[in-house]
Amino acid sequence: MQKLKDRIREEGVIRQGNVLKVDSFLNHQLDMQLLHALAEEFAARFENEEINKVLTIETSGIAIACMVADLMQVPVVIARKTKTKNMNGELYKKTVTTVTKDEYDLYVAKQYLGEGDKVLLIDDLLAHGKALEGLSDMVVESGAELVGIGVAIEKSFQVGSKLIRDKDIRLESLVIVDDLDWRSNKVVFRGDND
Amino acid sequence: MQKLKDRIREEGVIRQGNVLKVDSFLNHQLDMQLLHALAEEFAARFENEEINKVLTIETSGIAIACMVADLMQVPVVIARKTKTKNMNGELYKKTVTTVTKDEYDLYVAKQYLGEGDKVLLIDDLLAHGKALEGLSDMVVESGAELVGIGVAIEKSFQVGSKLIRDKDIRLESLVIVDDLDWRSNKVVFRGDND
Repeated sequence: MQKLKDRIREEGVIRQGNVLKVDSFLNHQLDMQLLHALAEEFAARFENEEINKVLTIETSGIAIACMVADLMQVPVVIARKTKTKNMNGELYKKTVTTVTKDEYDLYVAKQYLGEGDKVLLIDDLLAHGKALEGLSDMVVESGAELVGIGVAIEKSFQVGSKLIRDKDIRLESLVIVDDLDWRSNKVVFRGDND
Repeated sequence: MQKLKDRIREEGVIRQGNVLKVDSFLNHQLDMQLLHALAEEFAARFENEEINKVLTIETSGIAIACMVADLMQVPVVIARKTKTKNMNGELYKKTVTTVTKDEYDLYVAKQYLGEGDKVLLIDDLLAHGKALEGLSDMVVESGAELVGIGVAIEKSFQVGSKLIRDKDIRLESLVIVDDLDWRSNKVVFRGDND
């Protein structure tokens, strides 16, 4: 998606350790016109699928997920990273172990996910993919159907996309980043040399 | 706003300690058609104001803020509760002390808030108002203009709305809850006896 590539080239900041910061338009500040365009692209890619629910992970997936779900006229369910004292129904829980060996849990109330649901998972970024992998497993274990995963930015050189595709899950990435060079602040996108 | 009152009456769950759970349509699962209607109401109430930025607090304010900003065609800025290692520019910071004496910080990067900005603060709920009070102070101290605050649900019997109105800030609440009775699961709204 050229619009997103251009924006990443203009405003993305690369940090040592393969970090790509998109704070000015996608994470800390949100350009709603861009998000609207991203949502339209996701809606187009999944238009032949019956989807009745968009699932995302707090915090950075919420905005895109809402824009997609608004177009599709379906609800959003937010997987929570903390179990508040108010979440006292039955919960699905998945423990996510990050590449730096930190652990956290993802929670979804059972009443909002289960048999009969056709779920599209939306997130901003796919890097190591541990959270999306855990959430995919949760969807399948709930009895719901996982229609696919949509991410705005896929970093192909980290393990996440392989984890997802190895599970035969349809993955739609609006842009694929094949390389990041923090010294020159250069981003290499898939398709740049087509 | 009758549509929101009706929904709270149908699906809201009251817990001891004046807790009103709206997980099925506003917090954990989001009814995007309802959120769209809430956003249209905020846009109508603030239509005579020049607003160039919507500011909200992670996590539960993000969805409504995005819908409002999408209608107003302005960006959203999300005040973060944790300072990630990727946020390494200059930051505004406000420490929020909750009624239970817990403390946490709110962060906004200085490049996304400052002189010349006309800011609408959006959140889902106004109860004790400590976070919204801190964020209001942050906006004013940044040199930006705080046009007003919009919340979906105001609990009038907790101190937040007084804190905000005592600062002469325009506060627009889509529904005002005057009383909650957890024994009978009854919600009393402002205007019920008009």
